[in-house]
Amino acid sequence: MAVYTHLAAEELAELIGEYDVGRLVSAKGIAEGVSNSNWLVETTQGRFILTLYERRIDNRDLPFFLGLLDHLSAKGSPVPRTIHDRSGAAYRMVGNKAAALIEFLPGVSIERPTPAQARAVGAALAGIHLAARDFDRSRNNELGPQAWRELLEECGDEALASIDPSLPALVRSELELFAEQWPTDLPAGVIHADLFPDNVLMIGNEVRGLIDFYFACNDFFAYDLAVTHAAWCFTGDDEFQAEVSAALMTGYEAIRPLTEAERNALPLLARGASMRFLSTRAYDWLHTPADALVTRKDPMAFARRLSFYQTQGDSAFKSGTD
Amino acid sequence: MAVYTHLAAEELAELIGEYDVGRLVSAKGIAEGVSNSNWLVETTQGRFILTLYERRIDNRDLPFFLGLLDHLSAKGSPVPRTIHDRSGAAYRMVGNKAAALIEFLPGVSIERPTPAQARAVGAALAGIHLAARDFDRSRNNELGPQAWRELLEECGDEALASIDPSLPALVRSELELFAEQWPTDLPAGVIHADLFPDNVLMIGNEVRGLIDFYFACNDFFAYDLAVTHAAWCFTGDDEFQAEVSAALMTGYEAIRPLTEAERNALPLLARGASMRFLSTRAYDWLHTPADALVTRKDPMAFARRLSFYQTQGDSAFKSGTD
Repeated sequence: MAVYTHLAAEELAELIGEYDVGRLVSAKGIAEGVSNSNWLVETTQGRFILTLYERRIDNRDLPFFLGLLDHLSAKGSPVPRTIHDRSGAAYRMVGNKAAALIEFLPGVSIERPTPAQARAVGAALAGIHLAARDFDRSRNNELGPQAWRELLEECGDEALASIDPSLPALVRSELELFAEQWPTDLPAGVIHADLFPDNVLMIGNEVRGLIDFYFACNDFFAYDLAVTHAAWCFTGDDEFQAEVSAALMTGYEAIRPLTEAERNALPLLARGASMRFLSTRAYDWLHTPADALVTRKDPMAFARRLSFYQTQGDSAFKSGTD
Repeated sequence: MAVYTHLAAEELAELIGEYDVGRLVSAKGIAEGVSNSNWLVETTQGRFILTLYERRIDNRDLPFFLGLLDHLSAKGSPVPRTIHDRSGAAYRMVGNKAAALIEFLPGVSIERPTPAQARAVGAALAGIHLAARDFDRSRNNELGPQAWRELLEECGDEALASIDPSLPALVRSELELFAEQWPTDLPAGVIHADLFPDNVLMIGNEVRGLIDFYFACNDFFAYDLAVTHAAWCFTGDDEFQAEVSAALMTGYEAIRPLTEAERNALPLLARGASMRFLSTRAYDWLHTPADALVTRKDPMAFARRLSFYQTQGDSAFKSGTD
């Protein structure tokens, strides 16, 4: 959460001048995005988010990410569109960094979702799954089961045990299970893959923006639902919120009903979704100095959610009754 | 430059609900303010800056700072007004921290001012000096010559020499000079005391906002002009910009002509202004871990400006001819 690169107002004005969006009126560096610098920019014609891609993001992926925003917003999904420069380019270079200008969407990121809000989020997620079906680019999921294994092996048992003594055994048995049982033939397409509450802008019960598609990729739709479930259905103390969960499922299925195979796979997919965040958080935990600029996120939150999914199985994914 | 305190959207909405400003539509933590947390907040009725006072600011000073904004904006100065809550209070407590809602003003902080921009800044500075004459509160300058001495003595010669070998001698001779010659009877009133370019919002050549009055206090008007001169009239490489300087002086005097005594005092006041920033920067440099969240500012920039003022005397403050 920081602005990593300094851009003088004069440089910002020059950059904005490359777009047909009017003249620069205001620019505030905003504390969003773990790996990018972002400014909330106002011009005489509107408001925009300017993103400078700092690290973790491969510029070769930008046509996928930025094209996806254009595709989804053109279909009416609540997704910000990419503003193209006067030459039609979706991103420009500022020094050696890529920069993109993206539509500003109103809304706030809630932290304690109500069932009504979760239902709207489920519906919005299903909506982008359907809307992206004819998007003509694809991108591999670089954070799938094989990547979890590699990240966790790089951490090593000793380091994992330093986070929590139970971690090495949990990780070993789950990775084995995924190696044997991870599905191979569920309905798939473009997924968000990181739809945490801070990536959803809401006003009241309405979803006004799905943002931060920088993990978007092609994978199972039901895995995306499992990620969203793991991200939305627990309190800050990792207490399961049954009503929020039921509403999320109902909202999703109102737009895109799950197949029998997807429904059966959900408990395993949710354990995988938990392992995905456990693995990156554990890796970052062990590789980020405690006093660094970036706040380290507790890997154990997702170990606890994983245990919950182990115990609960199917029953975690009951739909609500209307 | 950070948001030090996390406020959930739910908490922000509740806080905003205490004001008659409509409902919360958007909130972005902004990377401004060294010692406060700030959010750019949009409601159904407008845009505001929400500030949470973290440290360095004594809540007992808030009636002065926030009342000054109200006083100056009521007089037509380009200063954001304080939004009062439904009970009329200028600030509220959020947990154990004070919070204030302040009008949002457009404009960007320029970094390479043109003479036309510096002229507008000089005029705006003189404007607040005049507009604050009948403000009924006062506040001592806690960063005057005595404070510089205390800060630098707390650093100690050895530590100052570790920044630059020339510093202890420079500091000693200047502090002696201030002790003997610092003026006692120049025209005085409320001053901004920290009018760096990042505290001025401009659109084109027009000053649209003077912000961050958290060093405002009662002191000599000409000292405030000297601070502004030291802050605006040098490039990032500490090269003096004679035309910018002349325009700043001309702009100031077009609104409030200097007295003979003020004019004579300017070279010494500018050496003092340089010492003011040298002293706090040196103190912060020596007391901030190199890897801390806050960027340390180079104390030597103001040692170089101080030397410039020593050498140039009067000639640094020539007005432009129109």
